[in-house]
Amino acid sequence: MKARVTVTLKTGVLDPQGKAIVGALDSLDFKGIESVRQGKIFDIVLNDLTEDEAKKRLTAMCEQLLANTVIENYRIELL
Amino acid sequence: MKARVTVTLKTGVLDPQGKAIVGALDSLDFKGIESVRQGKIFDIVLNDLTEDEAKKRLTAMCEQLLANTVIENYRIELL
Repeated sequence: MKARVTVTLKTGVLDPQGKAIVGALDSLDFKGIESVRQGKIFDIVLNDLTEDEAKKRLTAMCEQLLANTVIENYRIELL
Repeated sequence: MKARVTVTLKTGVLDPQGKAIVGALDSLDFKGIESVRQGKIFDIVLNDLTEDEAKKRLTAMCEQLLANTVIENYRIELL
């Protein structure tokens, strides 16, 4: 079973990397960019699980390793 | 206008970071994970553009800065 986990910064958390990208784009003459916020995705292949089990397992993985839940949100999609 | 750019490694390109995550998950007792591949997302807010212009602009941004097209694929979604 394949899944995609998307981890994004919570609203209000500063994103210096995103700010740097806005600066870099500006210096490449891409104007009119209001903001960029960077996030991560994890494409995960799991063996032999039902959908329910996979969701539970992935939620635990996010809570324990993949996301820092103090500053990040995560979303799980089964593909 | 809001857009999400997803950048993923091309098939066949090694992903040591993904391999490290599999190892870390394994040591946290998450068994049965076949593979993890990590990618990036960019949530971009653009000013005053039509859909067509925005798509063109975003494609240029990906080619020039956001993705390394030698080893990465990118996908643009307008939200």
